[in-house]
Amino acid sequence: MVFLTKQKSVRVGGRNNQAVTLHGAVHALRDMGGITFFTLRTRSGLVQCVCTRREALDGAAEGCAVSAAGHWRAEPRAPGGRELADAAVTVLSRPAAPAPVPLSRPKLELHLDTELALRPVVLRTPRQQAVFRLQAAICRAFRDYLQAEGFTEIHTPKIVHAGAEGGANIFRLDYFGKKAFLAQSPQFYKQTMVGAFERVYEVGPVFRAEKHATPRHLNEYTSLDFEMGYIQSFTDVMEMEQGFLQNLMGLLRREYAAELDLLGVELPRADKIPAVRFDEIKAMAAEQYGYSIRDPYDLEPEEEQAIGRYVRERWGSEFVFVTHYPSKKRPFYAMDDPEDPRFTLSFDLLFRGMEVTTGGQRIHDYAAQVAKMERLGMDPAEFESYLMIHKYGMPPHGGLGIGLERLTMQLCGLDNIRRACLFPRDRTRLEP
Amino acid sequence: MVFLTKQKSVRVGGRNNQAVTLHGAVHALRDMGGITFFTLRTRSGLVQCVCTRREALDGAAEGCAVSAAGHWRAEPRAPGGRELADAAVTVLSRPAAPAPVPLSRPKLELHLDTELALRPVVLRTPRQQAVFRLQAAICRAFRDYLQAEGFTEIHTPKIVHAGAEGGANIFRLDYFGKKAFLAQSPQFYKQTMVGAFERVYEVGPVFRAEKHATPRHLNEYTSLDFEMGYIQSFTDVMEMEQGFLQNLMGLLRREYAAELDLLGVELPRADKIPAVRFDEIKAMAAEQYGYSIRDPYDLEPEEEQAIGRYVRERWGSEFVFVTHYPSKKRPFYAMDDPEDPRFTLSFDLLFRGMEVTTGGQRIHDYAAQVAKMERLGMDPAEFESYLMIHKYGMPPHGGLGIGLERLTMQLCGLDNIRRACLFPRDRTRLEP
Repeated sequence: MVFLTKQKSVRVGGRNNQAVTLHGAVHALRDMGGITFFTLRTRSGLVQCVCTRREALDGAAEGCAVSAAGHWRAEPRAPGGRELADAAVTVLSRPAAPAPVPLSRPKLELHLDTELALRPVVLRTPRQQAVFRLQAAICRAFRDYLQAEGFTEIHTPKIVHAGAEGGANIFRLDYFGKKAFLAQSPQFYKQTMVGAFERVYEVGPVFRAEKHATPRHLNEYTSLDFEMGYIQSFTDVMEMEQGFLQNLMGLLRREYAAELDLLGVELPRADKIPAVRFDEIKAMAAEQYGYSIRDPYDLEPEEEQAIGRYVRERWGSEFVFVTHYPSKKRPFYAMDDPEDPRFTLSFDLLFRGMEVTTGGQRIHDYAAQVAKMERLGMDPAEFESYLMIHKYGMPPHGGLGIGLERLTMQLCGLDNIRRACLFPRDRTRLEP
Repeated sequence: MVFLTKQKSVRVGGRNNQAVTLHGAVHALRDMGGITFFTLRTRSGLVQCVCTRREALDGAAEGCAVSAAGHWRAEPRAPGGRELADAAVTVLSRPAAPAPVPLSRPKLELHLDTELALRPVVLRTPRQQAVFRLQAAICRAFRDYLQAEGFTEIHTPKIVHAGAEGGANIFRLDYFGKKAFLAQSPQFYKQTMVGAFERVYEVGPVFRAEKHATPRHLNEYTSLDFEMGYIQSFTDVMEMEQGFLQNLMGLLRREYAAELDLLGVELPRADKIPAVRFDEIKAMAAEQYGYSIRDPYDLEPEEEQAIGRYVRERWGSEFVFVTHYPSKKRPFYAMDDPEDPRFTLSFDLLFRGMEVTTGGQRIHDYAAQVAKMERLGMDPAEFESYLMIHKYGMPPHGGLGIGLERLTMQLCGLDNIRRACLFPRDRTRLEP
């Protein structure tokens, strides 16, 4: 028996001439005859190392996991302005084969299918890492902001007995002989938890069995959901999202400059986001760019792009809240506008011409919810456990869901959502 | 068009005599003839309110969502030592029926099946809320600690082409005509991401199609996973977990006193956790309590309890790391102990006599991993995308998975894991 006591912490850092031992993978290695330069891929970034004695290299080659002891020396041409001098290497592990693609090139320029098939290895490049570090930052900002605003984190089931969004786009599974589904959204559960905690959020996977094969759809994605009670209007939800976005941009500016720089990302401003009615912005953009509206009830991808351009040109914003979506395109729990029930008290957020959020106010009154379900031909008895919350009292409430991969994609300027997902799931892709 | 600017924030707080408007649900209401006392369930806790004019009550009854304007007045007998005096109420929403159980009672004492069927409503009680606020705190401490230790958050797919844990306990689904599974663990993916980020974590759902009906198993649960590279021993993983536990206890002590108090939770110490070999602790506990060991390769629930008792009595610890589990009970990626390959470089963490964590060092060498798979009768070709990481080089690494509901259950002293899960999934339960 031994007692475990405290956790030790090792950090890359330190002053000039300070002795230091680093560990990482050999990212690139050049033998200059006597002197060997190599780049170490550490969890804090690339570090240039110089080894002056061949025997101190321990036979290290690209792809080896090593530890390297030496001392810091100022070197303006190296990343971070310094290098590890007089490195003495210990090889900790050797690859069985050289990498299938040249990982040390600044850009790989692979075909998307090749990139995705090789993802486990391609993710070792700094550019790919930057994308997913920014993605992690989005989640971090989301949670930190909502925590400070009094939200409680929840975890709700992904195996469910009924779909929240309805329709055929739902994965079915056998659950011990019973029919079950994969959750399309945590909608029912997050509304339920408003009854307990007033303000809740969840970061988790959602599943859509859509047969799309587009650059903007995944069959499994991560949804950033929140739901809040005691709202006075659905604009309270929009304001909360805007608060999160401002918090996110601040965090990125403060702590993720290296990643933004590597990817050439320019941060959008989130301090003044225009909000325009669905029917109005549709008409404005169509008139401005001289096209005719094909679908009066929805926004097509090209139309979202046109609206994004319009908003940028007219109001200088890369975000726009499009409000009051038509009732026939929103789910049964959406609250209709009492002033014109053809529209709902709801919104999408477009970012650089793509929808990244859907949200709005929900029906809280039991009789109103049952009546709307019946009007839509649904059977309230099938939703008994959901309707329990309305029956026993719910405050006015609303919320939203943000697509994490969409937000990442638009932030980083990627051309395909698969590049914003570590291991994407689409119609043909289950692996890796 | 309007511009959205900044998010406003409303907080419950303020000095004596200060005018304030609160909102919440009417938790309990007593009409004393002229004076009405009611308790408001706000997101910051219960607040006692006094309404002296009947017409200022707006017909509020239990279960109504209301806003209440008044001013703070010191009242030692009220929760928090103050009450909202001269309350003027506005009813925001009314329930369609009275609650099916008396929510304002300090303890409901419901049969588990009743409680779970009524969860959407029962979750409105302060005791239930306390459990899930502590659960949220666990996740918060986990992430904050790992973030500070240089870990990056990841999101990995839950629909997968192969199971990580093997065996029959896996849910199957139809994926556009292909056979797919629900992930039993993020194991393959988190190892993959060690190759990119060195240190990663994920908080997400895992799925086990086990036919158990025990008080300690769920078919869907939340797993707190991390994986770290460049370890010198699997004890590095244990030390990292211990660091998290110490961080958790500190957070709970600082910010969750009210919840701990309500549930009567005594926080365990995590500063000195004993680590004992599997075979040794088994023998020690069996000898101490005079029972015979039935399964030399695993720990039965009763045996975990006996070990928990032994560790508490001998070393005064509510935690114990049980190390060196037998190889035949660990998965194919577990690293065998080079000194005795019948055992692995792995561990479980028991907390108050129940396993809450499984972890260990993984095989990083390609040839070693392929050889072990072949020895176990597995076909390495089926795991090509996973083995890619070993082939192209992996550092020595290890990690763990913590069952969030188990940790919550043991922390709060609950008798059934279903009480530590908002909406549990078991063999017969898919709803709510």
